[in-house]
Amino acid sequence: MKVEYINPFLAAAISVFNTMLKTPLTRGEPFLKNGTQPNHEVSGMIGLSGKAKGMVVLSMSREAALGTAGEMLGMQLKEINADVADAVGELTNMIAGAAKAQLEQLDMSVSLPTVITGKAHCIDFPKNTMPICIPFDCKWGPVAVEVGLVE
Amino acid sequence: MKVEYINPFLAAAISVFNTMLKTPLTRGEPFLKNGTQPNHEVSGMIGLSGKAKGMVVLSMSREAALGTAGEMLGMQLKEINADVADAVGELTNMIAGAAKAQLEQLDMSVSLPTVITGKAHCIDFPKNTMPICIPFDCKWGPVAVEVGLVE
Repeated sequence: MKVEYINPFLAAAISVFNTMLKTPLTRGEPFLKNGTQPNHEVSGMIGLSGKAKGMVVLSMSREAALGTAGEMLGMQLKEINADVADAVGELTNMIAGAAKAQLEQLDMSVSLPTVITGKAHCIDFPKNTMPICIPFDCKWGPVAVEVGLVE
Repeated sequence: MKVEYINPFLAAAISVFNTMLKTPLTRGEPFLKNGTQPNHEVSGMIGLSGKAKGMVVLSMSREAALGTAGEMLGMQLKEINADVADAVGELTNMIAGAAKAQLEQLDMSVSLPTVITGKAHCIDFPKNTMPICIPFDCKWGPVAVEVGLVE
């Protein structure tokens, strides 16, 4: 994956959290992701295709998923249910959409967001992808954006 | 999701198993999937976009994932590792590709396949999608193809 593709996803995540959740994201150091690193408990995934193909993952700790979904839905949530999954899917959709708008030379379109829940799930990208993980913290807990994109 | 979209995915799964693995798939009865049904231990996912947007999931029991990957790689495999994930991702890619070829009126393209591993993971499609799950059996164990597609 080209390094210049990272910034649009990083900026998109920060912007979506600011706009939708009125909360800042503090970013950590991006690193190369491999499949043996377990994801957080809730992961929103969306595919990108066009002149480049890819997958974007918004992975959230349980606390971050409950906090962000609660904020979006205006209620307090205590368990990971279909409402939380829908909210995380929608956030993933917005981040992927905002990033693809900044990568318009790749003429990509987005698939349907789906959400994985499960305490010890791992997400493996294809071996040749060199996916990047960008860790973040928000006021509810840790969050990560993972992107694999190949031309 | 329109019922006429199911058959291409069903036929694609059977055809890919026949061609790539020289093994028949026995199909069960398709049903409407909801997020509370846990998936098998290994799930390959790929996004579709174009005139319709969607996500295809090939979910495999541990035994089926090890058996199919072993067959593809010509070796005996005992644990779910990056080779197994890559093989399941490749199968998912082929099934999605074959199905989209049969749905050419939707002019779809595929994203990058990614593979989820984890004993108790669940995959939630967006609420309005009405995703369909088609259960299958192969000689190594149970397999399922899940599709959510909206125009």
